[in-house]
Amino acid sequence: MANSPSGESVIHRVVRILAAFKDENPSLSLRQLARLADLPVSTVHRLVGELEIEGLLVRDDQKMLRHGHRLWEIASRGSRASSLREAALPHMEDLVNQTGSHVSLGVIEGTDVLYLERLAVDDSTVNITKIAGRLPVHGCSAGLIYMAFAPDSERELFLSRRLEKLTPDTVVEPAELRALLAKARERGFISMGGIIVPESSGISVPIFGAEGQVLAMLTLILGRGDENLPSNLPQLTFASRAISRRLGYEPDARGIRRRSAPLV
Amino acid sequence: MANSPSGESVIHRVVRILAAFKDENPSLSLRQLARLADLPVSTVHRLVGELEIEGLLVRDDQKMLRHGHRLWEIASRGSRASSLREAALPHMEDLVNQTGSHVSLGVIEGTDVLYLERLAVDDSTVNITKIAGRLPVHGCSAGLIYMAFAPDSERELFLSRRLEKLTPDTVVEPAELRALLAKARERGFISMGGIIVPESSGISVPIFGAEGQVLAMLTLILGRGDENLPSNLPQLTFASRAISRRLGYEPDARGIRRRSAPLV
Repeated sequence: MANSPSGESVIHRVVRILAAFKDENPSLSLRQLARLADLPVSTVHRLVGELEIEGLLVRDDQKMLRHGHRLWEIASRGSRASSLREAALPHMEDLVNQTGSHVSLGVIEGTDVLYLERLAVDDSTVNITKIAGRLPVHGCSAGLIYMAFAPDSERELFLSRRLEKLTPDTVVEPAELRALLAKARERGFISMGGIIVPESSGISVPIFGAEGQVLAMLTLILGRGDENLPSNLPQLTFASRAISRRLGYEPDARGIRRRSAPLV
Repeated sequence: MANSPSGESVIHRVVRILAAFKDENPSLSLRQLARLADLPVSTVHRLVGELEIEGLLVRDDQKMLRHGHRLWEIASRGSRASSLREAALPHMEDLVNQTGSHVSLGVIEGTDVLYLERLAVDDSTVNITKIAGRLPVHGCSAGLIYMAFAPDSERELFLSRRLEKLTPDTVVEPAELRALLAKARERGFISMGGIIVPESSGISVPIFGAEGQVLAMLTLILGRGDENLPSNLPQLTFASRAISRRLGYEPDARGIRRRSAPLV
């Protein structure tokens, strides 16, 4: 377990130590931390000492360890996650107020959707997304709308993977998925019910960046059968366009002209 | 610049590399990064390679480096910052909606207040707080209300420091500060105008945790002279109590009794 001269393993061990803290266990004893990080207590003891000096970990009165605010600060500054959140939040609030539904903001991280934000009016709907939580790409409407707009090579890679059937309604057949994604790309949205838990549905639209790439996905989470697309979709689309514009995207304005003639 | 066998310097260098990314420069070339982190290009090159493997840094099409979502994910999970934010956000939204003012959530980090969240209706008020931004403790109402409720030893240490006069109205005299903090502790809030920039004011109240310790500070940011305490303070206090309760605090309920007699 010695460090290599170039220190490679230090970074990997530090990530394991920091990632051992979760919402369920925000504070840990040294021994618990060593077990969760799967590292010897002596190694963890030494690295924790250094992490405390940097303020990335702090110790409370009971000697329990937890993340220091410094870690959050470093991660928040300069993070695309924070700038996305900040651009999206006002429009997400409007969506929650107007639709009364849950709204989430997700990004792609590996083969998952990572949720950066979630807003809700109350807890009446089943919503398994949580902030900094993940869902598999094929198990949520956010992941599927991403794949609908992804570069061809990325979509083909996704379609070639063996996907787990999470509920009876999860779509896992490549041909069926391919057709679903093609339709979603054409329409600009996807509406899926019961693909991760039977009782909930999601409607997702892409959020575009300045170069037209998909930076994030905006989702309305509803009870199964409550999709009400004619009412919900226009508002969701409006919100995603407003967020995309803040991020530098210029939607196609063909056919729209400013009237130069007087209005009266 | 060699790594020590125990790898101490690796962690410190990694922090310097990750902290070099800011809102103003979220993406950097290797050379820019080395300059901002004040480290040799060769060292940065090697460490960046390892950070990319862990997903903490990612490279875009133009070979520019930026934080990976994985860094944000690790920092968000298990972070007191996220749980504070999540507990506070709904009540902060209500406050913004009801008062029409800017609202911020801050915590103490060293000799600064670190802002975890800020909500606003528009940009009509001067508000120099930003998410993951900092202000010195004596330069903001949030820092002062924290010190009003801090353990005696911490307050004495603060009062013994030499404080910079940031504006003509910044209070820096120990005796004057001591009186100010005693009054704030007695009243449960502080209202300060122009101590960081001449044109803005802040009203701050503490947010308590389960053990009665101050976990965070909630602030209404207003234009100078717009404090309107009779209208704003009750709402601010109500919001901070609601947030404190979510965090496990039980406010003193002396004198409040549930009527057991029928109401009609």
